[in-house]
Amino acid sequence: MNEAVATLEGWYVSHDIRTLDWQAWKSTTAVERAKALDELAAVHTAFSNYEVQKSGGYGLYVMAGNKADFMWIQLRPTLEELIAAKHELNRTRFADFTRPAYSYVSVVELSGYLAKPGVDVSQDPYVQGRLKPALPKTQNVCFYPMNKRREGNDNWYMLSMDERREMMRSHGMIGRSYAGRVTQIITGSVGLDDWEWGVTLYADDPVVFKKLVYEMRFDEASARFGEFGPFYVGSRTDVSALGEWLHV
Amino acid sequence: MNEAVATLEGWYVSHDIRTLDWQAWKSTTAVERAKALDELAAVHTAFSNYEVQKSGGYGLYVMAGNKADFMWIQLRPTLEELIAAKHELNRTRFADFTRPAYSYVSVVELSGYLAKPGVDVSQDPYVQGRLKPALPKTQNVCFYPMNKRREGNDNWYMLSMDERREMMRSHGMIGRSYAGRVTQIITGSVGLDDWEWGVTLYADDPVVFKKLVYEMRFDEASARFGEFGPFYVGSRTDVSALGEWLHV
Amino acid sequence: MNEAVATLEGWYVSHDIRTLDWQAWKSTTAVERAKALDELAAVHTAFSNYEVQKSGGYGLYVMAGNKADFMWIQLRPTLEELIAAKHELNRTRFADFTRPAYSYVSVVELSGYLAKPGVDVSQDPYVQGRLKPALPKTQNVCFYPMNKRREGNDNWYMLSMDERREMMRSHGMIGRSYAGRVTQIITGSVGLDDWEWGVTLYADDPVVFKKLVYEMRFDEASARFGEFGPFYVGSRTDVSALGEWLHV
Amino acid sequence: MNEAVATLEGWYVSHDIRTLDWQAWKSTTAVERAKALDELAAVHTAFSNYEVQKSGGYGLYVMAGNKADFMWIQLRPTLEELIAAKHELNRTRFADFTRPAYSYVSVVELSGYLAKPGVDVSQDPYVQGRLKPALPKTQNVCFYPMNKRREGNDNWYMLSMDERREMMRSHGMIGRSYAGRVTQIITGSVGLDDWEWGVTLYADDPVVFKKLVYEMRFDEASARFGEFGPFYVGSRTDVSALGEWLHV
Amino acid sequence: MNEAVATLEGWYVSHDIRTLDWQAWKSTTAVERAKALDELAAVHTAFSNYEVQKSGGYGLYVMAGNKADFMWIQLRPTLEELIAAKHELNRTRFADFTRPAYSYVSVVELSGYLAKPGVDVSQDPYVQGRLKPALPKTQNVCFYPMNKRREGNDNWYMLSMDERREMMRSHGMIGRSYAGRVTQIITGSVGLDDWEWGVTLYADDPVVFKKLVYEMRFDEASARFGEFGPFYVGSRTDVSALGEWLHV
Repeated sequence: MNEAVATLEGWYVSHDIRTLDWQAWKSTTAVERAKALDELAAVHTAFSNYEVQKSGGYGLYVMAGNKADFMWIQLRPTLEELIAAKHELNRTRFADFTRPAYSYVSVVELSGYLAKPGVDVSQDPYVQGRLKPALPKTQNVCFYPMNKRREGNDNWYMLSMDERREMMRSHGMIGRSYAGRVTQIITGSVGLDDWEWGVTLYADDPVVFKKLVYEMRFDEASARFGEFGPFYVGSRTDVSALGEWLHV
Repeated sequence: MNEAVATLEGWYVSHDIRTLDWQAWKSTTAVERAKALDELAAVHTAFSNYEVQKSGGYGLYVMAGNKADFMWIQLRPTLEELIAAKHELNRTRFADFTRPAYSYVSVVELSGYLAKPGVDVSQDPYVQGRLKPALPKTQNVCFYPMNKRREGNDNWYMLSMDERREMMRSHGMIGRSYAGRVTQIITGSVGLDDWEWGVTLYADDPVVFKKLVYEMRFDEASARFGEFGPFYVGSRTDVSALGEWLHV
Repeated sequence: MNEAVATLEGWYVSHDIRTLDWQAWKSTTAVERAKALDELAAVHTAFSNYEVQKSGGYGLYVMAGNKADFMWIQLRPTLEELIAAKHELNRTRFADFTRPAYSYVSVVELSGYLAKPGVDVSQDPYVQGRLKPALPKTQNVCFYPMNKRREGNDNWYMLSMDERREMMRSHGMIGRSYAGRVTQIITGSVGLDDWEWGVTLYADDPVVFKKLVYEMRFDEASARFGEFGPFYVGSRTDVSALGEWLHV
Repeated sequence: MNEAVATLEGWYVSHDIRTLDWQAWKSTTAVERAKALDELAAVHTAFSNYEVQKSGGYGLYVMAGNKADFMWIQLRPTLEELIAAKHELNRTRFADFTRPAYSYVSVVELSGYLAKPGVDVSQDPYVQGRLKPALPKTQNVCFYPMNKRREGNDNWYMLSMDERREMMRSHGMIGRSYAGRVTQIITGSVGLDDWEWGVTLYADDPVVFKKLVYEMRFDEASARFGEFGPFYVGSRTDVSALGEWLHV
Repeated sequence: MNEAVATLEGWYVSHDIRTLDWQAWKSTTAVERAKALDELAAVHTAFSNYEVQKSGGYGLYVMAGNKADFMWIQLRPTLEELIAAKHELNRTRFADFTRPAYSYVSVVELSGYLAKPGVDVSQDPYVQGRLKPALPKTQNVCFYPMNKRREGNDNWYMLSMDERREMMRSHGMIGRSYAGRVTQIITGSVGLDDWEWGVTLYADDPVVFKKLVYEMRFDEASARFGEFGPFYVGSRTDVSALGEWLHV
């Protein structure tokens, strides 16, 4: 039997991606729209406070293309709190004007491929910070789920630990060459959702998402073993800016 | 011709996974919502009584992510009773506020790969208990359907019984190393639904679902032969807690 | 060029699988529901009479799981009569409360792999009876469509007639070992619908569907060459029982 | 680089496949239904006149199964006229009772695999007639889109022209053995729609569709290289017969 | 590790493909339809002005087949402006009569496979013009997304730079042989949307789309390595012509 790499898990994460029902939004009254935005602002503040108090993470984004209009990313210490956050959003009047477009449930993960021996991670503030992160405040965001392939000769899970470690090292070097331009949060979803990992990228220039993912695609870890789900790209926003976007 | 392993079958099982129509839920009156929850509570009690009387199994769960909000798991001795349970739920006013998200029909299965020779299973209380189980009362649940692969050189059904037994033994050893942390119920669905098996996992910590499924993925039985459908993860609930979740 | 096996075709077959719109069903009046059931009863009687008069076949089933609630199977001598039967059902008020879940159009088929030489099938009452069958009156039904695989080295249509015949013979032996417990009706759909065959199984115990399909999956004809579509399982019913199921 | 075969293109073709919204159809008034059928009859006559005047092709069909109820096939000299025909149909009241089920855009194609050398096709009345055909008036129709496979060793586009020509010759011989029983119209859709070709078959007996497509499936051109989309089968109709079908 | 080719990126691009809700369109008043077209005309003019002022690109198209009715292509210097353009369209009354059919987000891309050494592209007006293009004003348009395959021996990203360059050179020669008949705009979408590239073709004769894409399919770069998404084909229009199409 092959050996699984050790992983560390942090907060649970929900990517809640939705479209706006523009027809319903426009056909209601201005008063109703204002109330809907007020209720959204209230939960937005509450969600943001989790991050301020270091008891969760939160981001709100407007998305490009007509396949999605918004993404709420929530991080919480427990799955139950993550479910509660969904209900909190759904109870607002604003949520009534939205429709689900995509959903992803995962947990912040640090893999042990490149772990330093002898470090007690439960005491390491850097490691703990990455497991319970505040979300980067860059202008842009990119999310996609992915698998490691298990097909014929391209079966990641049949490789030895050394082969996998070497490929992840090479993969990590590409990522490191983008340091300062892209921040990535890897979340694990084996046993939690339909793909094995979620990747959330943060940058101030969306072309950097393309550059990074494209360069990685030539790396054997992606070229032979990467399988990719849908991609969502957007811009960080707040309720005030969102109210401007949606002014009718 | 290759030899099929013997299997034992117990109760029929339905995984009935739904979303809530929040807009309809909020736009009806508080009186209607209360009646809907009352009717749900009535069938919930009735369903729970099957478990009390050891004539069926039952669990109600709130689910994470916006792809599903609830899961009802029902176990019954016959397919007809399973269909009746669906109708019983659908007759409630609460069901009118739900939409189907995923459905799975299967039957509790014990495979004979690791059967002990000489045991008369029809008289064995342990075996009979596993075929007609009460559902574990852990905080969390995970459900996913799966197949054994039949592609090129990775064709499970072309392996010899000995090869399959050896892999299932190794697979089972991983499962056993999680004893006390995860309980799994395997249900067979060949000839009943779109995948070959359903896997329902119970634990008090959802990270354990990830740890277990991830570790198994490196095992040859999964690495080369496992194909996985959608994953649903959630928390056990009752109607009173559910009323709190849905309070508007 | 490889040689196609000769086939015999009988009646055209429609598997018309639907869900019930429970919300609409409950929100209409009891009078309307009664009228809907009366109209369903009228066409049910008319459809059943085709079978009585040996000019068609007919069965009505309630289905397990929330992906489908009913299945109507119709057999008719011509495609035009099959289309007319669909319209006849759709004209009833009951049909207004249903939504399509799955549809399959095929024709009863006997393949020549195991044909006895020298038999004039057009005169053989046994063969003619199988081509124009009354549907078995067992308690349970199972339907699924399937293909023979054409991928790389697993290409059914590149095998010689002798290889195919030998595999179908072995496959048939499994089927025969279930004689008295399962009746199967094979319908061909190459050129008529999205898969190559439909398989409809009849038994008084749904576990037998699982046992049979699972045992066959280890047979090379299925293991290497079978590709399976969605599975639907249910119980035979009539309008009176159905009215009980749907009583609100 | 491999060599593409020369092709000739004729009229543009639309397969516009729809379902009927029976609930809306029944819940409107008899007067509205009559107006809807009158408007359909008016465009049906207009569409038919294109064929009479040899400036287009047209057929209307009722389809089997609950995945589709109608198919309109339109042929026009330009893509703009094809789009105009869609709008003309959509402007009728009848179209308001229909929902899209499938759509295909292609262009009549004659491939050069079997072209006779030295023929000036622009002057050949037989070739020109096949490029701008009237649609056969048989009782039944079958439509499906298809690709030539490009997978591993089964890559049609990596074969030499001679290999492809030999396979198409063998394929054509099967087709020719059905002369008088089936008429086929091949339409090319590379660069126009989601598959590479559309195949529309005409016969007075739908079993012949099955016989022909099944026999071809054993031919190497299909067995190794054919990939098939959804199949739709139905019967030619006119508005008067359609009014009978839809009488409520 | 394999080497990624250098790429240049220009404006962000949205392909916003929609259907018309004909029933809603017809059931509103003529006054409302006129207002809807007026609002569409206003944003159409505003969008067109970006192109006039060389600060963006824009095209409006009516599409063939019933899978889509319109396509809006927008080009903007930033992702935020692209999102704003979506909202601007959605705020019109006309948008209320449309439903999303397909969406694609990408960025104009020039790949470096055929780049001339020693050219400072940031100063090269030809290169800059191609990165920030006005959309061709041909009669017809074709859009499809695509990937380079990564399967078994057909793994584009495992080829050497020289192998890829040679194939892209051959591929480009086919494209060049269509110079004057087809203009293509390649947009990159790795990290931005679900496929790796979008291809938008412009021609005055839609058969040329078929000829070009078919000829390329025999080229090894497509035959072995091309994977294609859905194809959309249509005709350039303006609001006045569109008002004629939609006159009821």
